Amino acid sequence: MAATRRETDSMGAIEVPADSLWGAQTQRSLQNFAIGEEKIPREIVHALGIVKQAAARTNRKLGTLDAVLANTIEDAAEAVAAGDMDAQFPLSVWQTGSGTQSNMNANEVIANVASEALGGTRGDKAPVHPNDHVNMGQSSNDTFPTALHIAAARMVTDRLLPALHAMQADLEDKAAKWDDIVKIGRTHTQDATPLTLGQEFSGYAALVADGVARIELALPGILKLAQGGTAVGTGLNAPKGFAEGIAEEIAELTGLAFESAPNKFAALSGQDALLFLHGAIEAVAMSLYKIANDIRLLGSGPRSGLGELALPANEPGSSIMPGKVNPTQAEALTQVCVAVHGNQATLSFAASQGQFELNTYRPLMAHVFLQSVRLLADASDSFTRHLLAGLEPREDNIARGVDNSLMLVTALAPEIGYDAAARIAKTAHENDQTLREAAIASGKVSEEEYDRIVRPETMLGPDRN
Amino acid sequence: MAATRRETDSMGAIEVPADSLWGAQTQRSLQNFAIGEEKIPREIVHALGIVKQAAARTNRKLGTLDAVLANTIEDAAEAVAAGDMDAQFPLSVWQTGSGTQSNMNANEVIANVASEALGGTRGDKAPVHPNDHVNMGQSSNDTFPTALHIAAARMVTDRLLPALHAMQADLEDKAAKWDDIVKIGRTHTQDATPLTLGQEFSGYAALVADGVARIELALPGILKLAQGGTAVGTGLNAPKGFAEGIAEEIAELTGLAFESAPNKFAALSGQDALLFLHGAIEAVAMSLYKIANDIRLLGSGPRSGLGELALPANEPGSSIMPGKVNPTQAEALTQVCVAVHGNQATLSFAASQGQFELNTYRPLMAHVFLQSVRLLADASDSFTRHLLAGLEPREDNIARGVDNSLMLVTALAPEIGYDAAARIAKTAHENDQTLREAAIASGKVSEEEYDRIVRPETMLGPDRN
Amino acid sequence: MAATRRETDSMGAIEVPADSLWGAQTQRSLQNFAIGEEKIPREIVHALGIVKQAAARTNRKLGTLDAVLANTIEDAAEAVAAGDMDAQFPLSVWQTGSGTQSNMNANEVIANVASEALGGTRGDKAPVHPNDHVNMGQSSNDTFPTALHIAAARMVTDRLLPALHAMQADLEDKAAKWDDIVKIGRTHTQDATPLTLGQEFSGYAALVADGVARIELALPGILKLAQGGTAVGTGLNAPKGFAEGIAEEIAELTGLAFESAPNKFAALSGQDALLFLHGAIEAVAMSLYKIANDIRLLGSGPRSGLGELALPANEPGSSIMPGKVNPTQAEALTQVCVAVHGNQATLSFAASQGQFELNTYRPLMAHVFLQSVRLLADASDSFTRHLLAGLEPREDNIARGVDNSLMLVTALAPEIGYDAAARIAKTAHENDQTLREAAIASGKVSEEEYDRIVRPETMLGPDRN
Amino acid sequence: MAATRRETDSMGAIEVPADSLWGAQTQRSLQNFAIGEEKIPREIVHALGIVKQAAARTNRKLGTLDAVLANTIEDAAEAVAAGDMDAQFPLSVWQTGSGTQSNMNANEVIANVASEALGGTRGDKAPVHPNDHVNMGQSSNDTFPTALHIAAARMVTDRLLPALHAMQADLEDKAAKWDDIVKIGRTHTQDATPLTLGQEFSGYAALVADGVARIELALPGILKLAQGGTAVGTGLNAPKGFAEGIAEEIAELTGLAFESAPNKFAALSGQDALLFLHGAIEAVAMSLYKIANDIRLLGSGPRSGLGELALPANEPGSSIMPGKVNPTQAEALTQVCVAVHGNQATLSFAASQGQFELNTYRPLMAHVFLQSVRLLADASDSFTRHLLAGLEPREDNIARGVDNSLMLVTALAPEIGYDAAARIAKTAHENDQTLREAAIASGKVSEEEYDRIVRPETMLGPDRN
Repeated sequence: MAATRRETDSMGAIEVPADSLWGAQTQRSLQNFAIGEEKIPREIVHALGIVKQAAARTNRKLGTLDAVLANTIEDAAEAVAAGDMDAQFPLSVWQTGSGTQSNMNANEVIANVASEALGGTRGDKAPVHPNDHVNMGQSSNDTFPTALHIAAARMVTDRLLPALHAMQADLEDKAAKWDDIVKIGRTHTQDATPLTLGQEFSGYAALVADGVARIELALPGILKLAQGGTAVGTGLNAPKGFAEGIAEEIAELTGLAFESAPNKFAALSGQDALLFLHGAIEAVAMSLYKIANDIRLLGSGPRSGLGELALPANEPGSSIMPGKVNPTQAEALTQVCVAVHGNQATLSFAASQGQFELNTYRPLMAHVFLQSVRLLADASDSFTRHLLAGLEPREDNIARGVDNSLMLVTALAPEIGYDAAARIAKTAHENDQTLREAAIASGKVSEEEYDRIVRPETMLGPDRN
Repeated sequence: MAATRRETDSMGAIEVPADSLWGAQTQRSLQNFAIGEEKIPREIVHALGIVKQAAARTNRKLGTLDAVLANTIEDAAEAVAAGDMDAQFPLSVWQTGSGTQSNMNANEVIANVASEALGGTRGDKAPVHPNDHVNMGQSSNDTFPTALHIAAARMVTDRLLPALHAMQADLEDKAAKWDDIVKIGRTHTQDATPLTLGQEFSGYAALVADGVARIELALPGILKLAQGGTAVGTGLNAPKGFAEGIAEEIAELTGLAFESAPNKFAALSGQDALLFLHGAIEAVAMSLYKIANDIRLLGSGPRSGLGELALPANEPGSSIMPGKVNPTQAEALTQVCVAVHGNQATLSFAASQGQFELNTYRPLMAHVFLQSVRLLADASDSFTRHLLAGLEPREDNIARGVDNSLMLVTALAPEIGYDAAARIAKTAHENDQTLREAAIASGKVSEEEYDRIVRPETMLGPDRN
Repeated sequence: MAATRRETDSMGAIEVPADSLWGAQTQRSLQNFAIGEEKIPREIVHALGIVKQAAARTNRKLGTLDAVLANTIEDAAEAVAAGDMDAQFPLSVWQTGSGTQSNMNANEVIANVASEALGGTRGDKAPVHPNDHVNMGQSSNDTFPTALHIAAARMVTDRLLPALHAMQADLEDKAAKWDDIVKIGRTHTQDATPLTLGQEFSGYAALVADGVARIELALPGILKLAQGGTAVGTGLNAPKGFAEGIAEEIAELTGLAFESAPNKFAALSGQDALLFLHGAIEAVAMSLYKIANDIRLLGSGPRSGLGELALPANEPGSSIMPGKVNPTQAEALTQVCVAVHGNQATLSFAASQGQFELNTYRPLMAHVFLQSVRLLADASDSFTRHLLAGLEPREDNIARGVDNSLMLVTALAPEIGYDAAARIAKTAHENDQTLREAAIASGKVSEEEYDRIVRPETMLGPDRN
Repeated sequence: MAATRRETDSMGAIEVPADSLWGAQTQRSLQNFAIGEEKIPREIVHALGIVKQAAARTNRKLGTLDAVLANTIEDAAEAVAAGDMDAQFPLSVWQTGSGTQSNMNANEVIANVASEALGGTRGDKAPVHPNDHVNMGQSSNDTFPTALHIAAARMVTDRLLPALHAMQADLEDKAAKWDDIVKIGRTHTQDATPLTLGQEFSGYAALVADGVARIELALPGILKLAQGGTAVGTGLNAPKGFAEGIAEEIAELTGLAFESAPNKFAALSGQDALLFLHGAIEAVAMSLYKIANDIRLLGSGPRSGLGELALPANEPGSSIMPGKVNPTQAEALTQVCVAVHGNQATLSFAASQGQFELNTYRPLMAHVFLQSVRLLADASDSFTRHLLAGLEPREDNIARGVDNSLMLVTALAPEIGYDAAARIAKTAHENDQTLREAAIASGKVSEEEYDRIVRPETMLGPDRN
């Protein structure tokens, strides 16, 4: 059995692993919430470090905390922010709905590290006390939503937006490169008038670009921080100026334009800014779904599919059949998109269930929001690198599709009349001929006339002619 | 301005349209809830008629209600149940969450009809009183969930199950009829080993059959009725025996095996049986989505699609291009399935939000549940009649797919060795040849050998050989 | 049997009601899609009128349509836009996923009205032809999403935003009026430190204000129109300048800043801007849920509830018990919010399912988006008028809550020490005393001292002291 | 840098960590799918072990695999099933949608373990080959859904059902123990007629019991196994009798009544049985939500809440305020229930997206289904142990609520007349008196008469008197 030390809190004594930096409250939560496998996200832990660091700075500046204590706390908090203490944060997502125990986890770890740095003993809560010093001017009720906004803003900025930008750039390249490859369009899954492969990919690029723009539009909403509201939003026990001061420090530490939320009652009891931002993420996920699904269908084959795209072969599709390349990256990405769809339902339900001065679904919201961002960033990156980068048109098949198309008959109508044109198309359909074969067989046009008149490259829109 | 009469309730006086059979409480609700366009479903109105008819019978049998009053109420309630009074039920879905005003709407209409039949005057609440007589032994809190279960059970039984059975039968017919049409299989949207079109449709038929079986499994849960619980579940003011008696009457009136719910506190405050049944409906809707989407993809073309199925042309797809048949029935059905998906989210959220002795999201739940049933029944019926009934295989394209397939190379391996077989397939893929062409060109097999060895009809499973 | 006339289209002949202005294609759709009760929303019909009016103007200006025909079409289209022709639009939501038949419905009705105005005969398609003239330069594939954006933008602007603004204004009034009513705060549903009722309502006002701001942020996304993309996004058959020209006309007709979407391939195959806007609407709906639920809980009682708010009595809550006022408006609003949650799931799923050049879930998306807007606008309006307007604080109960609170003990700690203060609170809790009684009985403070020290009005935040 | 060995597959050579038991295909997947933090659930890995063990047995019995090889494979597979090889399964959830790489991971690990046991060298694929021997008669397309059904059935049986049964038992105990504690009922959150606390808890017990029954009803659906369908459902390459034989072995190994699915085409391309079962789980989750939310509201206080229940204090709620006990277990459970709600949306969407012969959203479905089961089992268990077990009524507050209630006036009406009774209630409400005080002050009843007539214990339903 592992060695323990005895700690006490207002509930009495409890045994804590001797080598752990966490204390009684973290230990109680570990024992009371043995639920599931999901841990509080690392990004939240790091953001709690940032909050504690910024709080120490603010308290030092406001004169509410002794400078030596403040500096030592800041150093310990910085280590948490840097990820050096991740192993000291063992708590489950499925805990108190305010994230209280994770806030206390941070307070306990930082207090122990700082106390030891100042010659104290682990677990003594002296000279640095987890509540009195590390949590000074704060409450779990404002700290956890602040950490959530910090973590969310950083992940969206550092991971999701770059991944989407890279995908957009790749799609734009293809739109330019393939702008002259004329192919058959499809509406209702049925053959329709032609467009170029580049035009098709320009649509994909635009969907991603619009998605990026919406995320950027929604992002500032979560740059407003609850910190300073303390327990119920009034800011009781936070010194005057604390809310604005800590927001400034957090902005400096992260390089993001955080500011104090104008109404703390709303900031503690709602979670609407995060939900709105997830709505933007869901919107781009649904666009990515459409793009990935199109590409897998256009890449279907090698013989009995649409066969317009050749996907890169990243793993054996079949040990004997060359050309069987499964669209595995599209499968990973579309699975992620569906997960984001479910996360929106979770987040939305949770955001509605605040009661009075507090919403107590915050660890859940942190978990699903950050999961959506992480998954969509990673899967987009993987899709761009492992699929888009190696994607090639199957130009022979594409050309055959255009040659076989009956839709081009529309070009004949002005020359030989609507009825004659329709008859030619009908004959071609019934006899399984190409339109060209049927047209020439009809005697209405010569080979030269047909080739002069029926030119798909002139059917690509008023601005291209 | 339309003529009105003055009615009073405990809130005071209110003007009611002179020719309406409804009274003060209905009128107040009309004025207080001018929200949206959705009316309380007709099926709920009819079910309220059944409840009131059964209550009158039960009260007569228990001796709590004078026989003449009871008989007259029964006649009036029967008219409501038969749909003759639909125009007298003007209330919105978006009202009191217990459905109180719709229960009162039924009480008021029936009291007025019965009073007039006995020589009374509309609005006088005599000799038949809406609360004292029509609502005797009941409360909105048990009546509305009872009506909801009745309406739901009838619609599932009378409309949804028959529609799904008909679709299943059609799919089974096709599975049998097309059992010998060998086609290329597709996994990951990519060419795979062959199966028959009949086998593929047997899978569709099985999905529908399993869906039907699940609905039948879940249905008995909503045959348990809240009636008899009155306001909070205790049954205060309902005579002994009322709960069981009215359930028997409702069973007789509907021909469905309704019975009294064993725990009325659960029946008033939860709505879990209905949610579970909707889960069964969502499951079959997701299967129908898959079937309809497959059929639209298999029917894509006419030239540049998969082209294995010919869909019936129900409306002009294109005025000039023969063969352009849009899969419009598949589009209607898949839209309906997506709506059912959203309704599950609504219903589930709503079912969780009961507080204490009552769930007050009942009109919403009635609306979305019955909408799912109605839409899925109608859309399935439409899909069967207007799409499946006219669906035909495009056997030439199907055969071409099998002939072109490189997957059949697996049959050659045992004869000429794995490596030689793989080389043939690779050559065919690179040179855009058929497997047969490449095999014979390789000199490893003669034409006769190839045709003897490579027979897709022998690759259809161990039980078929 | 009603009289009919015979019309023909490329499928052959069909009987159409003699007095209907619609034609063959509408009639076929009526017969092929007998699904559900939901009709294409009136707002879409009116928006189709606007599109057709704008198209006629643009074609006249570009010289592609004879001025007399254009003017006559414009007049007929204006009547559709004004709602005068609503009865001529009988089609179901559950139809072709591109909304083709509803576009044709508009074309047929306008062509007949215009033809008759020019002396033609109903059904003759002359002198005004539904396709050649009314639909000139258009396709269902760009017209329907354009109409959807127009209808959505108008409803959000004209109905939802004003309703939310009015609610916000009412909440802000209450925040100001009740700013001095000190009450007990609640976190985790448990007693916490005090705040004022005005502060609490300032939080509600901020949630609504933020919700409004987000809708305004997302709205411009749907001011970009697909029109001009025609069938696949290339704009084939639309004259040069058509896309920009018609967007200008639509902007002028509606007074909203519509413009041509920069990428028509994305505009036809995605529906992301609408989904993003619905995400903003869902976010405010979840905030409204929280507000309405809080108010219903704060208004619970009259005796055994929280009893801090008195709700206006709009309808009889109980015939014998005064003070029983059911929170019916909160029930209607929260039901609506849950419906919006389900609609997000529907819309999101649907937005992901575009295939190739077209998304074919448009009538569904139109239905649920406009339903969300309509319901949330109406229910917010109803809630403001029928609940908020008459809401009053129950100041006696509120004061009693503050007096009874044990949380105020925090004010004693600095004076008599933490331990003594905690003992007083413990004693009060165990003996069911007020904190004041226990404190004075403890002998640690006098009555005067207690009343000087324990003043909840000083616990309302650093900026109020 | 860690040592590696070179392995090859049909794509060429790849470096694999020297000490890993997995091979080339697992390694490629690791590199190609660096997405998110979620690993393929351990329960799936164990179930794959069971499948491989059962396959080896079946192949030995059918004579298709040499007995020595079969026995050695069986031993290695058993170790995987027992969890001894968990560290050898490093793959992400977000991979190929058929779970192919996880099936290959199992094949590679088992082949290496078995080969080494027979004197072979890791990575040589001899004498035991991952495909030819371990995967004999199988395909990823039937193996992965089989493993999913096995894992799901075991977790539901072993973890979820026992947890729910324990909760039900606790609630039933309380229903019995508290059957005589009369309390005020609440409908619309407003005071209503009385019931007993035991009756209220009997409703909770019934909701859980009904939920359990539904899960048991839906469970047999996932006892049908896809195994034997191989790649497309035909069973190509599986020997006759394999499907039935392996189902029998799996049933024996697990003690659950698994059998071969009657239609393998449906089993590979759909996932409806699992979705239906999740629907049952969602239904009980929504009931648990309602129960947990009720208990947290009934436990609100200690002074300004409803105060009918005393929750056990598991962690410090407030360092200074005794009696502040946060409903943290209710918060954990309700967060879990909301996650289950979102998982239903994910699972349902995913189940609809099968294309042709295969659904490629399987790792996602495995992840969310097993997450729902694990979380709901753990959180229910935690809630029962840490909350329900220590829950106590606050009988003084409960009695005060009954004494204060105005709803009891209904008992006076038959004695003194409706109007006089209503006036008494009105007076009591206006003057903030108890009903008893106002009644006696009215002079209509004496103290003795009041106490004889107004007895809440007689208002608990017709069957209790």
